[in-house]
Amino acid sequence: MPEVNTISELRINGGRLCRRIEALAATGAIEGDGVCRLALTDEDRKGRDLVCGWMKQLGMRVSVDRIGNVVGVRGGLEDVAPVMTGSHIDSVATGGRYDGALGVLAGLEVIASLNDAGVNTRRPLAVAFFTNEEGVRFAPDMMGSGVHQGALDLEEMLASRSIDGKILGEELKRIGYAGATGVNRFRAHCFIELHVEQGPVLEREAIGVAAVTGVQGISWTEYRIDGTANHAGTTPMHLRQDAGYVAAAIAVEARRIAIEMGGSQVATVGAVELVPNLVNVIAGQALMTVDLRNMEEALLQGAEQRLADFVNQIGAREGVEISQRKLARFEPVAFDDAMVALVEEIATSLGFSCRRMPSGAGHDAQMFAPNCPTAMIFVPSKDGISHNVAEYTAPQELEAGANVLLQVVLNKSDY
Amino acid sequence: MPEVNTISELRINGGRLCRRIEALAATGAIEGDGVCRLALTDEDRKGRDLVCGWMKQLGMRVSVDRIGNVVGVRGGLEDVAPVMTGSHIDSVATGGRYDGALGVLAGLEVIASLNDAGVNTRRPLAVAFFTNEEGVRFAPDMMGSGVHQGALDLEEMLASRSIDGKILGEELKRIGYAGATGVNRFRAHCFIELHVEQGPVLEREAIGVAAVTGVQGISWTEYRIDGTANHAGTTPMHLRQDAGYVAAAIAVEARRIAIEMGGSQVATVGAVELVPNLVNVIAGQALMTVDLRNMEEALLQGAEQRLADFVNQIGAREGVEISQRKLARFEPVAFDDAMVALVEEIATSLGFSCRRMPSGAGHDAQMFAPNCPTAMIFVPSKDGISHNVAEYTAPQELEAGANVLLQVVLNKSDY
Repeated sequence: MPEVNTISELRINGGRLCRRIEALAATGAIEGDGVCRLALTDEDRKGRDLVCGWMKQLGMRVSVDRIGNVVGVRGGLEDVAPVMTGSHIDSVATGGRYDGALGVLAGLEVIASLNDAGVNTRRPLAVAFFTNEEGVRFAPDMMGSGVHQGALDLEEMLASRSIDGKILGEELKRIGYAGATGVNRFRAHCFIELHVEQGPVLEREAIGVAAVTGVQGISWTEYRIDGTANHAGTTPMHLRQDAGYVAAAIAVEARRIAIEMGGSQVATVGAVELVPNLVNVIAGQALMTVDLRNMEEALLQGAEQRLADFVNQIGAREGVEISQRKLARFEPVAFDDAMVALVEEIATSLGFSCRRMPSGAGHDAQMFAPNCPTAMIFVPSKDGISHNVAEYTAPQELEAGANVLLQVVLNKSDY
Repeated sequence: MPEVNTISELRINGGRLCRRIEALAATGAIEGDGVCRLALTDEDRKGRDLVCGWMKQLGMRVSVDRIGNVVGVRGGLEDVAPVMTGSHIDSVATGGRYDGALGVLAGLEVIASLNDAGVNTRRPLAVAFFTNEEGVRFAPDMMGSGVHQGALDLEEMLASRSIDGKILGEELKRIGYAGATGVNRFRAHCFIELHVEQGPVLEREAIGVAAVTGVQGISWTEYRIDGTANHAGTTPMHLRQDAGYVAAAIAVEARRIAIEMGGSQVATVGAVELVPNLVNVIAGQALMTVDLRNMEEALLQGAEQRLADFVNQIGAREGVEISQRKLARFEPVAFDDAMVALVEEIATSLGFSCRRMPSGAGHDAQMFAPNCPTAMIFVPSKDGISHNVAEYTAPQELEAGANVLLQVVLNKSDY
């Protein structure tokens, strides 16, 4: 376990952090205290403008890169690689106000607290928000951080087409965030991201802070099933090529595989569309997605293989054609042992209960893990709810996470 | 088995029948030789105008009733209840050219053939087309024939709202088919309807004509499943309330019940919608339909009960709320024994292979069955395909069906 050099007496201002979260949540606000800021929409632009304004107010140098990532830098006493934090401000269509936003605004709160205290760090500090972390309007997710760290190709991503038929590069220009800064050049000294857990574990165990050990591997597959549209009354069961039934059977099997495997394996069929989608017509076509995740690459591959075998079998048995498309595939990511231990030690020193845990969701931090020491801090999500307007983390929990972030940043920058 | 009095030497003109089918298919034509004539749209109006014109050319008295049903009558030697035939000319959104149209136009072809031969029947002959048989734009289906025979309430049906937000009574006026003739007064001597099978049985067995013994009972239920939208990665399997999984499990169970029951039982989940329908969000809500059909009321009730039990169990087990709404419920209908036997005997006498079979689809004829001797004639559907632009019945098969219709009409009218 690393030795924490010092725990500073400095603390962040929780009220100010909450006010910024509230102000950002007002852009793209939807019923039920949620937000809809799909990547590169007008709402996203308004959110970006707001956060950029805050960065400038805090005296940071703001740059925008070619994929629209925004990085604010607070200079250090020495001109070396910065300690970096950040997250994203885009959301899902019915998102909450903390997912992503907390990590960005807690980063700004760290800067504000250092400004207030007149503290200069040796290393520069960088706070970033990355384009299209959610992957809802454009695929894949974690796009901006992936391009930033060289895991995804810039030109290919600029050509991505949104679910509403727009080209990403053109949408960047439209909202004024097609920046000039090159990508895959910025190397941080280390990367630390604060995020809400988005799961129920911390709340269930009454723990305040988690030191995140890594991110589950993710496998997203889209299946297109082509059967035969036919009359629901006149077609005997044994003469059907029912694409809707096959989609349902795949969804049930995906769930069965996850439960049978246990451990960190999860499986979700979140999207299904039938054609023609009428009560009295056997579906001629079905489009569906399967989301598989596991902390162990070998186990994730095993889940993929078991599902693929089932898909092949049921396709042949039901006389339907099934084609598939990988929408996303990320191997599990392990965070830096020393960084994880530092988070744990700081949290404990500050008096918070703390546990280690993996992340079931993908995060921008994982794109940094191959290139610099990286870790994450989680704070609890009420009822484990996220990607939902009911997402909630209490003010004192937000403050706790931001104070851990502050101490990690101080510890790593003031070497 | 009834004795056929005579098989007339008279035959219909197959070429003329096919030309009328082709001309009607040109109104509302869509790509792939199909038609879109949703009830009371402009396309339906054009089709109605065309068929009414033909009726008048054939010397028929044409009347329109208050729900827009059109009845053409050819007088008989005696002023008694007519022998009636007919069907519908509305279609589903991606329909074929034979479903409904065949029964109406074969009726006209019978009249034309009698005119050509100078044959006067003792009973009057009536050929009708009924409003909104398909039930796609307005619910329920078989609306016009249901109102015509008193099974459905006129005023309630006039107030129906279409999927595009229009009131049925106003749409009738708009297209000029809000007639003055009262409903639930017309009693036919008997009713006979020619229709394409819309299933694969006749083609598979290489049989030319079916004497239809009745119509399957139909049970349509819509389920709304309320779970909890949540993150697909961070929510352990045992803490989910996954509405999408529950919908899939119900679809798989409906299929299992139908196959286990066998006989005429069929089950179809044709429509499913998930909310928010995203790859990485557990569905918080699902809306789905289940279509169950059986020839025996007791068995249909058994299927409904088995599915309801499963729905209750899985709702409780998965912690989701499930509400349901009956979209339609028709008991099975048995046609008249003597009429069915007459169809069978005539078909055989004309040299066609013939079998008895139930109808898996609802038809206008079933609305007449409680009030007068009723039966139907089926001809094959290529690959069993219907409610699809690829619907096809060969010209000689259409001609065979129309010749059986002619002989049934002659036999019942010339008593």
